Amino acid sequence: MSNTIPSIGRRGLMLVMSSPSGAGKTTISRALLDRDPGISMSVSATTRAPRPGEVEGKDYYFVSVERFQAMVEAGEFLEHARVFDNYYGTPRAPVEAVLRQGRDVLFDIDWQGTQQMRDTARADLVSVFVLPPSVKELERRLHTRAQDSAEVVAKRMAKAGDEMSHWPEYDYIVVNVNVEASIREVQSVLNAERLRRERQIGMHDFVTKLRGLD
Amino acid sequence: MSNTIPSIGRRGLMLVMSSPSGAGKTTISRALLDRDPGISMSVSATTRAPRPGEVEGKDYYFVSVERFQAMVEAGEFLEHARVFDNYYGTPRAPVEAVLRQGRDVLFDIDWQGTQQMRDTARADLVSVFVLPPSVKELERRLHTRAQDSAEVVAKRMAKAGDEMSHWPEYDYIVVNVNVEASIREVQSVLNAERLRRERQIGMHDFVTKLRGLD
Repeated sequence: MSNTIPSIGRRGLMLVMSSPSGAGKTTISRALLDRDPGISMSVSATTRAPRPGEVEGKDYYFVSVERFQAMVEAGEFLEHARVFDNYYGTPRAPVEAVLRQGRDVLFDIDWQGTQQMRDTARADLVSVFVLPPSVKELERRLHTRAQDSAEVVAKRMAKAGDEMSHWPEYDYIVVNVNVEASIREVQSVLNAERLRRERQIGMHDFVTKLRGLD
Repeated sequence: MSNTIPSIGRRGLMLVMSSPSGAGKTTISRALLDRDPGISMSVSATTRAPRPGEVEGKDYYFVSVERFQAMVEAGEFLEHARVFDNYYGTPRAPVEAVLRQGRDVLFDIDWQGTQQMRDTARADLVSVFVLPPSVKELERRLHTRAQDSAEVVAKRMAKAGDEMSHWPEYDYIVVNVNVEASIREVQSVLNAERLRRERQIGMHDFVTKLRGLD
């Protein structure tokens, strides 16, 4: 049984998860999306061409470079970046619509995207950084993931190191020793943040009634 | 399996729960203390005489009025108050000792005590306000609790109303529709707050090692 009072609404939140690749973030995100019906993945806009099977509005919003740049200039992105020759960004409007319904949005972005979102998302932002339990385990996961040369893995390790240096910019830190424990931990963060006073809309009217003043 | 890394310590937190009487706070507190071995109840100092069976240092620290006042003047209390002819207060030193061990302390105090603790506990403070689901339910619970006259219940309702007006001063709000759901919610708050970056001591050294810089 839940603790829901219909007259108390809730403003959704933006849950950002960042980590070096190989720390297990994708597994944790997927489990969260599977198990918690109140949260869904953010959808990015991109200038790259759709791949076979990709669905407009579900996998991506596919836009032209001109349209993308117009959106940047109009401040329509929560965060955006150029990756090689393509642009990627998260449009604010669809996220806002979800938050207003009292539902949450999950973002899988790096420290640069998160830095942008600290300005654009403000009080709606909740940020979690996922760390691997050890260098050895990170190395092992980066190896398992792709059958690449030692050189490629070394490059990935260096990139992981750069990403990890940004842990002090996040609200919560999860060290992914055990993936089930990590899923539960991120779920706790989500559950707790939903109970924050400032997200519970209608509380003022609810308490006014409780106090017999209405 | 847990997500513990021995080299990452944790600074404990002070979990304050307030509510009007009859909202179910005591039931929630007891369940939390029973189920979570990482949190224990704070122990107050008092000038009132011990009652039969009360144990010094467990139920209360029993002190003289002179000693109590000396402690107030020395700033040794996290919060203190006078209730009729007796003084009550929470000494800071034993709480500090528990926090340094990476364990948490639960406080069952009213809005006035919480206001004092916002100054004395600062970043260690996590505050939860528990509300009843309806006026009717609050009235029912205040009746069930004691076989008192309608007048006494009316007085309690007024006092509950005063207490409830302070909900905007708390970090988290739990509406106690279902007691099991409320216990889980407060447990989520505790679990999440334990993951806050600033409480995870040793994280800097841990990431330095992960990055191969040590």
